[in-house]
Amino acid sequence: MNPRVEPFSETRSLTERLAARLTPEDQQLQSMTDASPVKWHRAHTTWFFETFVLRPFVPGYRPFHPLYSYLFNSYYDQVGERHARPARGLLSRPSAEEISIYRRAIDAAVELLLETAGEPVHQRVTLGINHEQQHQELLLTDIKHAFAQSVIRATYLEPKPPRAAGSAQPAWRRFQEGLQQIGNASAGFAFDNERPRHPQWLQSFELAELLVSNAEYLKFIEDGGYQRPTLWLSDGWAVVQQLGWAAPLYWERRGGEWWTFTLGGMQPVAPDEPVCHLSHYEADAYARWAHARLPTEAEWEVAAQGQPVEGNLLDEGRCHPVAAAGFEPFGNVWQWTASPYVAYPGFRPAEGALGEYNGKFMSNQMVLRGGSCVTPRSHLRATYRNFFPPAARWQFSGVRLARDA
Amino acid sequence: MNPRVEPFSETRSLTERLAARLTPEDQQLQSMTDASPVKWHRAHTTWFFETFVLRPFVPGYRPFHPLYSYLFNSYYDQVGERHARPARGLLSRPSAEEISIYRRAIDAAVELLLETAGEPVHQRVTLGINHEQQHQELLLTDIKHAFAQSVIRATYLEPKPPRAAGSAQPAWRRFQEGLQQIGNASAGFAFDNERPRHPQWLQSFELAELLVSNAEYLKFIEDGGYQRPTLWLSDGWAVVQQLGWAAPLYWERRGGEWWTFTLGGMQPVAPDEPVCHLSHYEADAYARWAHARLPTEAEWEVAAQGQPVEGNLLDEGRCHPVAAAGFEPFGNVWQWTASPYVAYPGFRPAEGALGEYNGKFMSNQMVLRGGSCVTPRSHLRATYRNFFPPAARWQFSGVRLARDA
Amino acid sequence: MNPRVEPFSETRSLTERLAARLTPEDQQLQSMTDASPVKWHRAHTTWFFETFVLRPFVPGYRPFHPLYSYLFNSYYDQVGERHARPARGLLSRPSAEEISIYRRAIDAAVELLLETAGEPVHQRVTLGINHEQQHQELLLTDIKHAFAQSVIRATYLEPKPPRAAGSAQPAWRRFQEGLQQIGNASAGFAFDNERPRHPQWLQSFELAELLVSNAEYLKFIEDGGYQRPTLWLSDGWAVVQQLGWAAPLYWERRGGEWWTFTLGGMQPVAPDEPVCHLSHYEADAYARWAHARLPTEAEWEVAAQGQPVEGNLLDEGRCHPVAAAGFEPFGNVWQWTASPYVAYPGFRPAEGALGEYNGKFMSNQMVLRGGSCVTPRSHLRATYRNFFPPAARWQFSGVRLARDA
Amino acid sequence: MNPRVEPFSETRSLTERLAARLTPEDQQLQSMTDASPVKWHRAHTTWFFETFVLRPFVPGYRPFHPLYSYLFNSYYDQVGERHARPARGLLSRPSAEEISIYRRAIDAAVELLLETAGEPVHQRVTLGINHEQQHQELLLTDIKHAFAQSVIRATYLEPKPPRAAGSAQPAWRRFQEGLQQIGNASAGFAFDNERPRHPQWLQSFELAELLVSNAEYLKFIEDGGYQRPTLWLSDGWAVVQQLGWAAPLYWERRGGEWWTFTLGGMQPVAPDEPVCHLSHYEADAYARWAHARLPTEAEWEVAAQGQPVEGNLLDEGRCHPVAAAGFEPFGNVWQWTASPYVAYPGFRPAEGALGEYNGKFMSNQMVLRGGSCVTPRSHLRATYRNFFPPAARWQFSGVRLARDA
Repeated sequence: MNPRVEPFSETRSLTERLAARLTPEDQQLQSMTDASPVKWHRAHTTWFFETFVLRPFVPGYRPFHPLYSYLFNSYYDQVGERHARPARGLLSRPSAEEISIYRRAIDAAVELLLETAGEPVHQRVTLGINHEQQHQELLLTDIKHAFAQSVIRATYLEPKPPRAAGSAQPAWRRFQEGLQQIGNASAGFAFDNERPRHPQWLQSFELAELLVSNAEYLKFIEDGGYQRPTLWLSDGWAVVQQLGWAAPLYWERRGGEWWTFTLGGMQPVAPDEPVCHLSHYEADAYARWAHARLPTEAEWEVAAQGQPVEGNLLDEGRCHPVAAAGFEPFGNVWQWTASPYVAYPGFRPAEGALGEYNGKFMSNQMVLRGGSCVTPRSHLRATYRNFFPPAARWQFSGVRLARDA
Repeated sequence: MNPRVEPFSETRSLTERLAARLTPEDQQLQSMTDASPVKWHRAHTTWFFETFVLRPFVPGYRPFHPLYSYLFNSYYDQVGERHARPARGLLSRPSAEEISIYRRAIDAAVELLLETAGEPVHQRVTLGINHEQQHQELLLTDIKHAFAQSVIRATYLEPKPPRAAGSAQPAWRRFQEGLQQIGNASAGFAFDNERPRHPQWLQSFELAELLVSNAEYLKFIEDGGYQRPTLWLSDGWAVVQQLGWAAPLYWERRGGEWWTFTLGGMQPVAPDEPVCHLSHYEADAYARWAHARLPTEAEWEVAAQGQPVEGNLLDEGRCHPVAAAGFEPFGNVWQWTASPYVAYPGFRPAEGALGEYNGKFMSNQMVLRGGSCVTPRSHLRATYRNFFPPAARWQFSGVRLARDA
Repeated sequence: MNPRVEPFSETRSLTERLAARLTPEDQQLQSMTDASPVKWHRAHTTWFFETFVLRPFVPGYRPFHPLYSYLFNSYYDQVGERHARPARGLLSRPSAEEISIYRRAIDAAVELLLETAGEPVHQRVTLGINHEQQHQELLLTDIKHAFAQSVIRATYLEPKPPRAAGSAQPAWRRFQEGLQQIGNASAGFAFDNERPRHPQWLQSFELAELLVSNAEYLKFIEDGGYQRPTLWLSDGWAVVQQLGWAAPLYWERRGGEWWTFTLGGMQPVAPDEPVCHLSHYEADAYARWAHARLPTEAEWEVAAQGQPVEGNLLDEGRCHPVAAAGFEPFGNVWQWTASPYVAYPGFRPAEGALGEYNGKFMSNQMVLRGGSCVTPRSHLRATYRNFFPPAARWQFSGVRLARDA
Repeated sequence: MNPRVEPFSETRSLTERLAARLTPEDQQLQSMTDASPVKWHRAHTTWFFETFVLRPFVPGYRPFHPLYSYLFNSYYDQVGERHARPARGLLSRPSAEEISIYRRAIDAAVELLLETAGEPVHQRVTLGINHEQQHQELLLTDIKHAFAQSVIRATYLEPKPPRAAGSAQPAWRRFQEGLQQIGNASAGFAFDNERPRHPQWLQSFELAELLVSNAEYLKFIEDGGYQRPTLWLSDGWAVVQQLGWAAPLYWERRGGEWWTFTLGGMQPVAPDEPVCHLSHYEADAYARWAHARLPTEAEWEVAAQGQPVEGNLLDEGRCHPVAAAGFEPFGNVWQWTASPYVAYPGFRPAEGALGEYNGKFMSNQMVLRGGSCVTPRSHLRATYRNFFPPAARWQFSGVRLARDA
């Protein structure tokens, strides 16, 4: 395959393979406003290539369908009006099959274009690939949430046997005070929110070698963690009270044992696996209980610089965390940081509608770092910034502790 | 076919024919809490036969699936816990195809039972048939509502050409004061809420020959009907303000013309067709504007007694109102009455869980009479009482005026 | 005093005496949207006389204050825009003292007018008196609700010693089937909703001699009444679940005993007193549990016809129910009926804004009959119809049972 | 007066002078959950001294009233349960006069204690003074909001004539890149959230000499600022749509002119005065429209270091912004920054309940700097951090622009 086309085609193909495990009816589920149906993800990522690659770069391009831009635009105000987000699950038409046809048509057009296209097209396609990878992860977190809503807990894949607990022991990794460089300055792809690279003064700190495990989090629960307001941010405590949180999302007490819903079905909570599906509020409360704190995103990035992007990622095909084997900044669970999601000094969003990609969400969200067991490996890097509201729990999100040194 | 089995089999078959026009993805749509997915209707009506016929009357009966009673129980507290109503659209499993299998299995068991069963079984099956007919109507009103939520307005069936406007002229039909008998005393099937037959003193009144037409309702709109609080019940005016109502449900203004969404797609509003998809509040406000009032359910029933159950019903296959051809109490649109839905004197709900069928809803609802273009003919009679909350608009509901004589 | 002025002056004076037990700060409390501040009641009733007596009947009348009509109009759309109901507690200006001045000014003008006025004025003033009496009752129920919101439970009056439990025994009073006359045909004052008098066919029935007592209601509680959905209307059960009802409003469990907040402070629940502060849903569920039902308003009225308007009314000065002493249709607690509040046959609301007084509320409300311990005696009669939504509990509302005979 | 007692007594006295302009009924108003009644502020600040000074430092201290800790605890979970925040306006008891008595009693006890007390007591009293100063400001912003809810717009004070527009011209003040020290290291009082002082690397930037004026903000409005989603953060745009914002809080269009409600009554919007009562979202949108940005709190602090705490503060007695006269970092309006409110590196909240003072609110809030026309001068310093949710508008909050240099 043409090496300039291959990354595009492989990404597009992976999305289809992820969706192929699901029936057309599964693909229509939208279990909450924050989540989207799988077939909507498949169509929206296609619309992205159509809107930002084919329309500007193919002279005389005619849209595949006159209503698809209305239906599959996510939040780009400059592109136009759109279908209400909470009603994405009410689209039985187009069918999953019609969306397959849409995908194939756009793929063909993009692949044709790529054969001869110049750098601007390739840059846009690279953005589209990275965009689609984000939706691959969301596709999996969203279907997990959807399957959890019914007593018929459907199984997305066969669970793999858990990795044996390693001999990895909790420990702290120390970093010296000094002026550090943060952010992305590479010539390669990075989102606008990772740029520019800039200096930041960090005081000395320590970062935990290992992610917090289920066994450790259980001690927090058993110590009354969910009943003690002084452990919590005020907003977090209000959410705990209102929603009755008493354990991570998907945990259930069955006959004296904790179980959790996974993409491989209901499983006992494994003590040595990283705790997962925590909100920022829970991560922060746990850290306070443990006489530690969450790392800032700058601390995390300094620690991750130079580390290989390896670990339990989507490429492993587990879609579930595994027990730690040492200092692995990447994979398993996204790590909540203490940093609100704001612009780096000198941040410049892209021109036009693509400037809406990241910048307008820099409010009321917290940064997560490191990727998870459902993040494609090629999507990650040390400067990568993920972000979610502090109450969000349906991502594969956990905790790595830090403390002042 | 065995004549004791035929009504059952035909009703069950009609449901499947109605659903067959829809894809599995269409059948999963739930566009509001009041509505249910088509495949849920198909499963729930099956569960009804399983629960109230097979379980009590087939010795040693084992449920088809251990979770189906949880998933497909609608509101029978005495049968047990159940899946949350607003989340019925989140059931991708069982699939539409699995529900077909469920239906066929239960059908076979019921048909077998009916071959030899005695009167109690037949009575229960008759109740189940009437129950399923109610869901046939809801299946159609619910899918209409669901299809209306997307700019891709799917078409359920090919629209038939509108019936030519008859020469029928508005007129009033007069009824004398006196002691009337209301309610059902027949040996045949009737719901518990239609019984017992009982005397009611009616003062003289007049009932309109014809249903209110779109042309008449347009005059109300053009006269500022939706802007004048003094025409409305206080609760109704609050809803008008809150929801911004300015026309019947499904009406849209397009280039100076009124259009309406139908099961046959978008159609111009036909002046001589009965106005449809009104709430009780709108029906009541229209009547006040027209210096008339809504009939009580007793008045309506007296007028309908002895009239043949004929008209534009589901059996016509239009699924849309037609212009009036004279005094037709049945068909076209349900007629809102002035009567809150309460128990008749001496009302006794059935024993056990079936006692929850009607009685517990006798609060905050208004009675509608006459059936609509999506009601099966064999389901109706003069004593039949339908009921919905006064703000409901997604049924085929309209107005026939009354006045004191 | 001029006998044509006296009823007006006495009613106005009573309101001020009721309010005089409260501080200006108490008079400003609005504890829920359904309730109003005492000083608002005092101003609104004054505005009523200003708007419906002085403005139409005093040539060249100039309003007392240009903003008072905006502030103190309750719900008369034809009179104009008005201050939002939920924000009535946000009016520190005018002060309670300024409202006293307003009252005195309007009183003087009305009294002057009454000296020489003709029948139309007297009729309007009589309406105003009856209107003010309704607000006297609301003033007391609203301040009770407001005082209940703070751990400092203020005492409105000194409680009187409870009346000794009589020897009155539960029994049933029987009424024969037949055509009865219901509604008001007197030349004297009655609200439009009590008219016209009209025939209604009643089947034979029995009515309880006594109101349901606290002791009886406690048996319902102890029998799991609030935990058994099959006893409840569907809407009622939803409210029970949502609001966590487990006893009448104002009841509290303290050290194994039930106490209740009264206008005389916290008091033990007295077994032989009528149960009070029930919603229609609770009254209905209790009746079902007791194998009885609520009376219709027609049944109640037939039973009350010819009975003296006597009992534990506001004139007694207790503001709390007392134990029964026999068949007393009036006083103690309003009795929920099985009748939704609808128009009588031939009902004609008044012309103009006063037509909004009653008619527009004939939706989603239930009729209560008989008056309570905070209703002025001269306000009541057998045909009197009170009405509240079925979930309302802050009125002095209880139960008298009925059953088919 | 004893110089160790004087700051306490003067602060307490100022609160009473601020409240003395209000009637007892005014002092009870609570117009939204975020605001509190004036008399509640007066009682809560007194409770603070009672709880954190008298209880720990006066042996055998007996609380003034057994229920006051329940009623007047704001949010200190470690102190105990408390009256619901949205229901603070439902406390008619204790009266404003009773709260005066409470204040005098606690004042006497604290003053007595201060005569002989050691450093720990003085430190606590100083915290209490600073706490009370915060409530002095809130008292004024809350009563302004309350008075704005009624068409009778009460006047808190006589407005002073606006200060003549100075010759001050817009200009930019430049700051060089480098390692700066931020935060408080003084021996004097500072809140825990201002500490510790720590290094922060700042890139070069420019800060506007002047606050954004009404005239400038009007250009943003006239340029469609409130209609263009691309100018807004996503969350901000959602609020604009939901609440229908089209101008700053308190602005009204009257006959083609903009007016605004002030503590001195309705006033025309003065073009040269700083724009006020903006949310963070509006401040941020304005900055984007003006091709600038909001300063970070570190940038602001660097610019304010060494500047005298002078300007239009509460001590001026205007309670309204005035036209700018040059670079005045302090006074007039709080300046929204681009910085979410988070802990400084090494932040340590106080031990015990006072640790809840600041730390637990470090979520979903933005920092404001500089004080306003209702902030006491002695309360401010360059390191002072105020914080509110980004949608809050009822504080005297405005904009000073920054840009990269």
